[in-house]
Amino acid sequence: MRTFVHHLGNHTWEGVPILKYKEEPGTHFKQITRQVLSDCSPDFKTQLRYFEIAPGGYSTLERHQHVHQVLIGRGSGHCLVGGQVHPLAMHDTVIIPPLTWHQFRATGSDPLGFYCIVNCDRDRPQLPSAEDLKALAPSARDFIRI
Amino acid sequence: MRTFVHHLGNHTWEGVPILKYKEEPGTHFKQITRQVLSDCSPDFKTQLRYFEIAPGGYSTLERHQHVHQVLIGRGSGHCLVGGQVHPLAMHDTVIIPPLTWHQFRATGSDPLGFYCIVNCDRDRPQLPSAEDLKALAPSARDFIRI
Repeated sequence: MRTFVHHLGNHTWEGVPILKYKEEPGTHFKQITRQVLSDCSPDFKTQLRYFEIAPGGYSTLERHQHVHQVLIGRGSGHCLVGGQVHPLAMHDTVIIPPLTWHQFRATGSDPLGFYCIVNCDRDRPQLPSAEDLKALAPSARDFIRI
Repeated sequence: MRTFVHHLGNHTWEGVPILKYKEEPGTHFKQITRQVLSDCSPDFKTQLRYFEIAPGGYSTLERHQHVHQVLIGRGSGHCLVGGQVHPLAMHDTVIIPPLTWHQFRATGSDPLGFYCIVNCDRDRPQLPSAEDLKALAPSARDFIRI
């Protein structure tokens, strides 16, 4: 278990690789990096990750049974949670309830950086079907990027 | 379950009371506040809290079986983890292993603010006996405040 993870500046950490998030063939523009700031262990089944979305980028529109909590660490943006779009600024925190469609977007001129707290044991995200997209509120449909 | 906890400025949040931390009769100078930024629920058994220690203040020297992860959110300071004293600055993160003596101190002229991620189900902290204090490394003994 790593005990101390030292911040090097500009939201990078000592010994923590900067990973590309979900870069799969055919994936649309997303521009997200991921850094894992704690290891899963039998003693601590919670993980802290730092994500950063470049201006104009966005996270995958998805839902899952597991809950996660997000804490904004840098910049600003917006998120969809269920039917509602929220503005996001430094130190805001968002708890995504089970099976709730959500998406984060860096809507401003700065990157949107956020910490995400999640259980190590979790289900895989679900992607929306055409039916799911149709069922979204109009304001949510205007907001999302697929 | 609260979904959105909006930051009001100066590390205070909408609808989140600022609690005094462990103010018991006979307690020494500590100067800590606590704000709870998520509720425990069957769906999410992890809690995010924000603590702030005034300059010169310190957390209780304690240990427990449960692990917690700390993320520095404001100012600077030092912490003891086991036998070692670490400097702390913004965005550093510290994972406290099981049954490891630890204490946070706001050693600078600014408050030391930090987020703490912890399981909702956890054991109570243990305080050090005179024997435990004697067993600490000399640098740890110099650092601690009881």
